[in-house]
Amino acid sequence: MTNRIEHPIRIGIVGYGNLGKGVETGLTLHPDMELIGVFTRRNPEDVPSKSPVYRMTDLEQMKDRIDVLVLCGGSATDIPEQAPELQKDFTTVNAYDNHAEIPAHFDIINEVALQNNNVGVIATGWDPGLFSLNRLVAEAVLPKGDTYTFWGSGVSQGHSDAIRRIEGVKLGTQYTIPNETLIEDIKEGKEVAYTKTSSHKRVCYVVAETDADQAAIVESIKTMKDYFVGYETEVHFIDEDEYEKNHTGMPHGGRVIRRGYTDEETMAVYEFGLELGSNPQFTAAVSIAYARAAHRLYQEGNYGAKTVFDIAPAYLSPKTGAELRKELL
Amino acid sequence: MTNRIEHPIRIGIVGYGNLGKGVETGLTLHPDMELIGVFTRRNPEDVPSKSPVYRMTDLEQMKDRIDVLVLCGGSATDIPEQAPELQKDFTTVNAYDNHAEIPAHFDIINEVALQNNNVGVIATGWDPGLFSLNRLVAEAVLPKGDTYTFWGSGVSQGHSDAIRRIEGVKLGTQYTIPNETLIEDIKEGKEVAYTKTSSHKRVCYVVAETDADQAAIVESIKTMKDYFVGYETEVHFIDEDEYEKNHTGMPHGGRVIRRGYTDEETMAVYEFGLELGSNPQFTAAVSIAYARAAHRLYQEGNYGAKTVFDIAPAYLSPKTGAELRKELL
Repeated sequence: MTNRIEHPIRIGIVGYGNLGKGVETGLTLHPDMELIGVFTRRNPEDVPSKSPVYRMTDLEQMKDRIDVLVLCGGSATDIPEQAPELQKDFTTVNAYDNHAEIPAHFDIINEVALQNNNVGVIATGWDPGLFSLNRLVAEAVLPKGDTYTFWGSGVSQGHSDAIRRIEGVKLGTQYTIPNETLIEDIKEGKEVAYTKTSSHKRVCYVVAETDADQAAIVESIKTMKDYFVGYETEVHFIDEDEYEKNHTGMPHGGRVIRRGYTDEETMAVYEFGLELGSNPQFTAAVSIAYARAAHRLYQEGNYGAKTVFDIAPAYLSPKTGAELRKELL
Repeated sequence: MTNRIEHPIRIGIVGYGNLGKGVETGLTLHPDMELIGVFTRRNPEDVPSKSPVYRMTDLEQMKDRIDVLVLCGGSATDIPEQAPELQKDFTTVNAYDNHAEIPAHFDIINEVALQNNNVGVIATGWDPGLFSLNRLVAEAVLPKGDTYTFWGSGVSQGHSDAIRRIEGVKLGTQYTIPNETLIEDIKEGKEVAYTKTSSHKRVCYVVAETDADQAAIVESIKTMKDYFVGYETEVHFIDEDEYEKNHTGMPHGGRVIRRGYTDEETMAVYEFGLELGSNPQFTAAVSIAYARAAHRLYQEGNYGAKTVFDIAPAYLSPKTGAELRKELL
């Protein structure tokens, strides 16, 4: 593996939502990478970026100027539609996070990537992504044990959107809070009843419309199936000033914990945790490191779809093997 | 990569101290691996193992019956002497932990492994090993930031040995305790003065000989250069019963924390932690997972020395790529 990059890796960003902005910002921290441009379905003039902005349709003629495309569209429809098509002409990285569909997505990208001699790294980010990597390592090292994933404290975009759709709700943010008592019990070796609903609580901050029925809003939230039913749920009404001041950020994080045993009774607790000021910026940060890996795999002719499981850690770093062994081993 | 193992991976253990015993115990948790035997410089009859025990000199004639040798000797002299020699005939894994000498050890093993078409995975375990892996990933994802490694709470074998050599000390155990206040400050984004001595304190439990001068023992400990000078050090005298009951285990652990920034001011805290009931058993558990990887690399003809940096996580698991994507991504 050649760790030393001869010329900067040339990156294109597809999509300019929170994730695309995060990649744009994050790239400024990597001297071995260069942003060629942002590609959008919108009118480029409407995209508030200081980087060069192009139309998606310009991508084809810029093939030779881009080493890796970082796909920053949404997982609901953008990635499934765009990724297979762009994979024909580009090495790509995405943060596709629809866990149930990842195996099928891998197969689609793998086929196109192999046919066209390029690389597609899918499902980067933190979950899927770094959390997955830790679930794998923890299980491989401690085959006897159980793995627990906790999310938060952090903002769930899906749940926030759901409460904002309720009549009388002007603004709303939902925080997912892990059950710290349960986490302590796991780490102390106690028997735990870990279920989807026992492992987290949901705390909502809501700005109600004037004259809205607050009791009805609370009722609507707490009885919302799939989102809130079964969870311990708190609803706090606040005014718009407080909301703008304290609840418009996108913090998130979480923990992967494996409680294993290295013999019949000796416990080992493996824990990986993230506390993120900005969920999309960190997701972008992970995608950038995997873009570096994708380019190297491409240079080595190691084509096809890849996940965080398939990529040796050294490919993520700009340092040479010798530097890594000396400084970080 | 072929993830599915056709026949069990055949393992030999070289050396039967705490680490070798840990590998023997750990292998019982891995149905895809089989222990062929323990190899020792002692008289095999003196080795208290229920597994087949052979002389080191038997290794040469058993070449074809072993896929991977796990080298469980000490890092001071055993590994530097044995590893290059055994590497000629075997794919090996070791937990060599002399950080300063790792680059040179890598080069030696790499040369022999390449000449003889086998694989040598060096410096597995947790530090070096899983901690190193996390230092790399954290830095690659968060290039702007600082990484902090804390050890403990746990028993330092070297420091315990050092206090046992003091006149008047009958038994002694030294615990390394991380500075939790410093850790909290790091995670809260405060400026910290992280130095080798400020980041840990040292707590000693000592059983003194009858009539020993306890004040002199305390003085000898606190003024011991390289080991205790500069550290906050506590010395507790206890009786032999309490020592045998509470201070003969080998718990350890620690944390790798990177405090990074995903833009000018937005913080992201990346944390990896271990709490281990048995330090040698967990080190063994990591070596076993890397033995699986070593065998696969060998099967692929990917020869040479490797570290945790060079090995894709999927190689550690007995599951196929499709299983991993479905279950853990």
